Amino acid sequence: MTTTIKETGWTTKEIEISQQVLNKAYQRETQTLVSEVRHKINNMTDMEHLWQVHDILSAKRYDLDGKYDAREPMLVFTFAQLLKEGWINLEELRGLDSAKLAKISSLSKI
Amino acid sequence: MTTTIKETGWTTKEIEISQQVLNKAYQRETQTLVSEVRHKINNMTDMEHLWQVHDILSAKRYDLDGKYDAREPMLVFTFAQLLKEGWINLEELRGLDSAKLAKISSLSKI
Repeated sequence: MTTTIKETGWTTKEIEISQQVLNKAYQRETQTLVSEVRHKINNMTDMEHLWQVHDILSAKRYDLDGKYDAREPMLVFTFAQLLKEGWINLEELRGLDSAKLAKISSLSKI
Repeated sequence: MTTTIKETGWTTKEIEISQQVLNKAYQRETQTLVSEVRHKINNMTDMEHLWQVHDILSAKRYDLDGKYDAREPMLVFTFAQLLKEGWINLEELRGLDSAKLAKISSLSKI
């Protein structure tokens, strides 16, 4: 698998597209998280539930830190994961070469 | 100091008062924290500020875990700290013996 990835270089254009898609996905995901936290905190009756909100934020921060890996050899995996979770769609990746798109698509189904 | 504390036992009545005051102070402090977090999260424009909220919660949780020490030998220090920070007042500790109240009061001024 590593060998296959190494064979496929990323053009400047592809890197540019990738960065834009990653930024957009990250925005969506944090925006969704903020909405969830807002809802929980505004409807909170037991103050102890504040620590559940803290736990959610801790887990999500850890998750996001690892997930948005923009290093070239990791990009197909990053996109496959985001696709799987519904934060991006394949259409947004238009402009990447078809071999990469096929890999991302098939990895997202695992 | 340790010797002085050891000499002073806590009666069942004093422990009962202490528990009530600790509960009330903890409620006030978490309620204030919830209000602060609500305000921040409802007025957030940059989603990245969510991590500042997470940092505040992490720090406060750590602070609260240590501060509400209800072990008998620690109670005067716990109350002195809460008094210093304004979460309780001396009047609420009425019913503890005067030696303890004097210690709490003077420790709160350090």
